[in-house]
Amino acid sequence: MGQFLADELTALGAEVEQRPLGKQPGKEHLELPPVVIARYGNDKNKKTILVYGHYDVQPALKEDGWATEPFELTIDEKDRMYGRGSTDDKGPVLGWLNVIDAHRKAGIEFPVNLLCCFEGMEEYGSEGLDDFIKVESKKYFKDTDAVCISDNYWLGTEKPCLTYGLRGCNYYSISISGPAQDLHSGVFGGSAHEPMTDLVNVLSKLVDPQGNILIPGLMDLVAPLTEEEKTLYPDISYTMDNLHESLGAETGIHATKERTLMARWRYPSLSIHGVEGAYSAPGAKTVIPAKVIGKFSIRTVPNMESEDVNKLVFDHIKAEFAKLNSKNTMDVWLQHDGKWWVASPKHWNFSAAGKAVKQVFGVEPDMTREGGSIPVTLTFEEATGKNVLLLPMGSSTDAAHSVNEKLDKRNYIEGTKLLGAYLHYVAEEPTV
Amino acid sequence: MGQFLADELTALGAEVEQRPLGKQPGKEHLELPPVVIARYGNDKNKKTILVYGHYDVQPALKEDGWATEPFELTIDEKDRMYGRGSTDDKGPVLGWLNVIDAHRKAGIEFPVNLLCCFEGMEEYGSEGLDDFIKVESKKYFKDTDAVCISDNYWLGTEKPCLTYGLRGCNYYSISISGPAQDLHSGVFGGSAHEPMTDLVNVLSKLVDPQGNILIPGLMDLVAPLTEEEKTLYPDISYTMDNLHESLGAETGIHATKERTLMARWRYPSLSIHGVEGAYSAPGAKTVIPAKVIGKFSIRTVPNMESEDVNKLVFDHIKAEFAKLNSKNTMDVWLQHDGKWWVASPKHWNFSAAGKAVKQVFGVEPDMTREGGSIPVTLTFEEATGKNVLLLPMGSSTDAAHSVNEKLDKRNYIEGTKLLGAYLHYVAEEPTV
Repeated sequence: MGQFLADELTALGAEVEQRPLGKQPGKEHLELPPVVIARYGNDKNKKTILVYGHYDVQPALKEDGWATEPFELTIDEKDRMYGRGSTDDKGPVLGWLNVIDAHRKAGIEFPVNLLCCFEGMEEYGSEGLDDFIKVESKKYFKDTDAVCISDNYWLGTEKPCLTYGLRGCNYYSISISGPAQDLHSGVFGGSAHEPMTDLVNVLSKLVDPQGNILIPGLMDLVAPLTEEEKTLYPDISYTMDNLHESLGAETGIHATKERTLMARWRYPSLSIHGVEGAYSAPGAKTVIPAKVIGKFSIRTVPNMESEDVNKLVFDHIKAEFAKLNSKNTMDVWLQHDGKWWVASPKHWNFSAAGKAVKQVFGVEPDMTREGGSIPVTLTFEEATGKNVLLLPMGSSTDAAHSVNEKLDKRNYIEGTKLLGAYLHYVAEEPTV
Repeated sequence: MGQFLADELTALGAEVEQRPLGKQPGKEHLELPPVVIARYGNDKNKKTILVYGHYDVQPALKEDGWATEPFELTIDEKDRMYGRGSTDDKGPVLGWLNVIDAHRKAGIEFPVNLLCCFEGMEEYGSEGLDDFIKVESKKYFKDTDAVCISDNYWLGTEKPCLTYGLRGCNYYSISISGPAQDLHSGVFGGSAHEPMTDLVNVLSKLVDPQGNILIPGLMDLVAPLTEEEKTLYPDISYTMDNLHESLGAETGIHATKERTLMARWRYPSLSIHGVEGAYSAPGAKTVIPAKVIGKFSIRTVPNMESEDVNKLVFDHIKAEFAKLNSKNTMDVWLQHDGKWWVASPKHWNFSAAGKAVKQVFGVEPDMTREGGSIPVTLTFEEATGKNVLLLPMGSSTDAAHSVNEKLDKRNYIEGTKLLGAYLHYVAEEPTV
């Protein structure tokens, strides 16, 4: 994918480099995929906009329940383009390439200098990218006036939005091991401590079915809800029907759209993703797994600091495991983390994007935050010291990270126009 | 495997048939593997012994942690024969074939008429076999004087045993589903009920880390421990070191060998095997699984009736799920069950086996029960009305059902002699 992207950019007349990031930490036999960086245009009289995207995707197998081959783009009769990465994040990345292509074919001067930073490890915590950005912010990215990232989603399916906040994500593993190898449950059931029994007990102490996090002290880290902030929610164009449509079910926790949006944007959440090492196939296997690893993550918000969260998580899990009086051994560790981010929506970078939305879609965008984490957003802000804008292309029904991920053709085409119009309005914006 | 077995038996001069069992219940596209039945010898003046074994095995992948290819027999420097099925149950099945072969090569008259019943669905609840045995007990198996099954293990590694009791097994699935598809935990974490959160809560209400089953009323079904029964345990040649050796760890629940053997033989146990539908691979995936299926099983003992156990399990799980106040939907069902069994160790079938042990190994066997379930044992007893003996070949360290399953060459060769000697002593036993 990195090579493909580099070839496409080169063909469009951009200066392109593939930068190696070294080995994957803890997996020294694996070379990290390269960062594809590019410059299109180098005119001192133009603003320079740095755009980011990623060419890697979440895992996908047809057996997971896909209606089509996940790695073959399939377009249905409603112009929905199905395929892993269609909306997260290959579609938006191609959007930027389409903008360059369109200007060349139409013979229109490109309004800004464009810097591209496309990585291949976003879905695994952007390993190696932070240091790269910090170093290049003084070098390859030094002319940057503002940053734009298209890697999130509209709140619903009709109205575009500009996003000025993101939750962070701390991803944890809990490992519990006992016997030297898997055991026959008939022979040893009742006479040996079972790691899976301990694990479900510990996992059940993390979050309740209503989404309340049970880790003592964690909620005390959350910035209180102000009266002013409260007033932002009623005007957002979002309904409980939007939630139910994207869930494909009416299993929402909260009664109102306001509380639902707050739960997604400004409160933390804890999700249990699965168990590694236990029996996970269909059918029946009478095994006592010898070692099981539970995976869960916490979505973080202002003002939760990762180190504080880790300490509360580790202390709580160690205390809960100790209560079990099990002879098995437990270990818990942070697999990766990314900090939350909140930006200023008053900046010209956002104004330009607002005008572009009006131009292309004829509506004022919603100003939103996101539940998902894009850690690199904060890295760009801190490294460049410039404003960062999130300008989504896909809609809430795109099913990123799950089966049958798709991007509507309308979002792809109008979204490409949006990215182009944004660059033109950026060029017109007063920079002070 | 069925064809291979039929060819081998035919080559040894046995009359062999492969009997179809129809389609797999609930999976009508799958033909059940055939039962391989055979008769060797048809002399009205000889006893007729029916032997049972199975040619199917548990699932196995090298990636599970095997040191060698699970489906290639690999013998190490200590004459341990590694491979899936080596001890459960291909080794013992081949033992019976070796006995026939040895008599032919040595030119010694075979002491009994041998009837063989070798199935291919034992590890999935012997589907279809019960009806077959009930029907054939009046036909193909009608001459049976006693039954012998070699499909369990010695208590330790040195001393053979004769087994007169087994625990049963009820295998359950709990399915919890919410959204129509997997969700991105950043986008929906905190705003939707998560099936995995509900599942770990329900699973944590089944059994505590000390192995105590938490299902109300279940322990009331268990036959009380009598003073007479208590006196059987101290003499059994078994130590806590045997347990620790077979566990490969010191994670046993109970302090004494007596309590440990009781927990394995005469008390029920509940094991959680794993979760289907959640994220089970290495690494990190920030997914909210849409539908998860928890698998667990209960080892049953006298006087637990399957229907009573099912009712208590279903009522308890429904009650616990209701307490969660979740909008997700839950379903629980019995995947398969097999009843416990206890026989009379005073029967001539056991006396003959005891003499064979003395002859081959020079010791008196331990009279034991087993924690594992071999449902067909009870079926044979009820269908033929004859005594059933369990005569194990493998040892406690064979790791049936787990990685690096093996059979020691000593157990295979001496065990083959044992099966042969047993048939000779059977021929001498007074049948009243």
